[in-house]
Amino acid sequence: MKIIIAKTAGFCFGVKRAVDMTLDVAKKDRDGVYTLGPIIHNPQVIAKLKDEGVSPIEMHDIEDREIRDLIIRTHGIPRQLYDNISSRGFRIIDATCPFVKKAQHYAKLLKENGYQVVILGDSNHPEVMGLMSYAGRDVLVVNEGSDLQGLKSKVGIVVQTTQPVESLKKVLSNVIERAREVKVYNTICNSTALRLKETEEMTHNVDVMIVVGGKNSANTTQLANLCRSLSIGTYHVETAAELQEIWFRGADRVGITAGASTPDWIIKEIGKRIRDIGGESGNGQ
Amino acid sequence: MKIIIAKTAGFCFGVKRAVDMTLDVAKKDRDGVYTLGPIIHNPQVIAKLKDEGVSPIEMHDIEDREIRDLIIRTHGIPRQLYDNISSRGFRIIDATCPFVKKAQHYAKLLKENGYQVVILGDSNHPEVMGLMSYAGRDVLVVNEGSDLQGLKSKVGIVVQTTQPVESLKKVLSNVIERAREVKVYNTICNSTALRLKETEEMTHNVDVMIVVGGKNSANTTQLANLCRSLSIGTYHVETAAELQEIWFRGADRVGITAGASTPDWIIKEIGKRIRDIGGESGNGQ
Repeated sequence: MKIIIAKTAGFCFGVKRAVDMTLDVAKKDRDGVYTLGPIIHNPQVIAKLKDEGVSPIEMHDIEDREIRDLIIRTHGIPRQLYDNISSRGFRIIDATCPFVKKAQHYAKLLKENGYQVVILGDSNHPEVMGLMSYAGRDVLVVNEGSDLQGLKSKVGIVVQTTQPVESLKKVLSNVIERAREVKVYNTICNSTALRLKETEEMTHNVDVMIVVGGKNSANTTQLANLCRSLSIGTYHVETAAELQEIWFRGADRVGITAGASTPDWIIKEIGKRIRDIGGESGNGQ
Repeated sequence: MKIIIAKTAGFCFGVKRAVDMTLDVAKKDRDGVYTLGPIIHNPQVIAKLKDEGVSPIEMHDIEDREIRDLIIRTHGIPRQLYDNISSRGFRIIDATCPFVKKAQHYAKLLKENGYQVVILGDSNHPEVMGLMSYAGRDVLVVNEGSDLQGLKSKVGIVVQTTQPVESLKKVLSNVIERAREVKVYNTICNSTALRLKETEEMTHNVDVMIVVGGKNSANTTQLANLCRSLSIGTYHVETAAELQEIWFRGADRVGITAGASTPDWIIKEIGKRIRDIGGESGNGQ
């Protein structure tokens, strides 16, 4: 059985930076280090950070703990929340992905220049909640199927960094039929686009796709949905323990891809476990 | 035989305005009235204006005539040409369509704000040549199939007023894959969009489509191409004299649409002639 691991699988620039920053703080301080919400959407990384003394905390618990260092997650936080924690005297370490920061800046700029801000993204995702806080009252959060009710004539678009460009194209097509002036900042992060592209190409050359990453990770879920839409047997797992032998019966080639928040060590474990299964079922690479 | 004439057929706001302005000048002055190029793309209207003493003239003949009034056509002219004729002491009557003027203004604005200007349109069309003169040196003129070679990262789009919105959607989809910041002024004129829409709907309810207008009229040709793409028997004519009986054999319902530069009297003549043919072939309405 041949196992192919996507070159683009795993930590992106922003996630690596955030995890490094967090470990750096934890090294100096074994106590009182918190991240506001999970620093990235990967339960295994969060568990590992806990071993290093870093705990996620939610805003409503913030009064109850003795916090020294408070780390802001890769996805960013709403402006009002930032102002709130800034006034409390913690040391704030801002691990917001620089590409997300840029999108926040553009949302603010569009609003200041009189555009109605439209955000393409998932309104429940923390990144989008952060963006909304910069976007003004008449903000619309849309997906590719939205009916765009309430759309004005002068519209500025920013995009959740992990959205596929195909969704942006669809939204643009819908918006341009109604608005007269449209300014778009394509804030889709390049690594997301490349990862989707490599994953799509990979599906043509393998029999089974294993997508590795947090079940709560939007970009990992998106990878799994992409594979499924291309009619290939697809399994979304967080760890090697979830792999089942039956998935690989009759498969000659297995593809592995992983979301931006999936650490290397998990991808390696997955590869090793599939190789073992291949051996067990007599199809050794 | 039932004959259905599109509500949106014929003169648009800009054309009506230009023809009225020209007739107004011609009324006061029976001599020395010229239009720089044909005022609109309809040979029959041009012939009628000639009877009123208005002749089209090309720039290279401008030295040879005694010109008092020089009328600028609906499609507009390049900036340099405007400067040139302004310095010659004619009375200039600017009949440029206000929507085209607006597109010229946006092209200039985009250039001044550091955008590479992309014009969606036909590079040989006088409107587009006018737009180009405001757009800066790195301007790209594109159609929906263009490969966008030379596209920069910060792009501003304006559109020839008679383009279909579907073409704009395709260009936007291509541009947004490469550029990071895109500002679009949707300068497609509403009457073009409505005319295309009504024509498309009409094709579902008739057996034959007659498209009336100048063979040199971009928007009329576009109407004919739209009908053909919808697999309906389509004939593009300028006058009633071109109609052939054979086209209507077996047809119960005939649709008539016409470009923005087609005068009412031609549309009426066409309707009358088809009604006569229907009578002759025994299918009278």
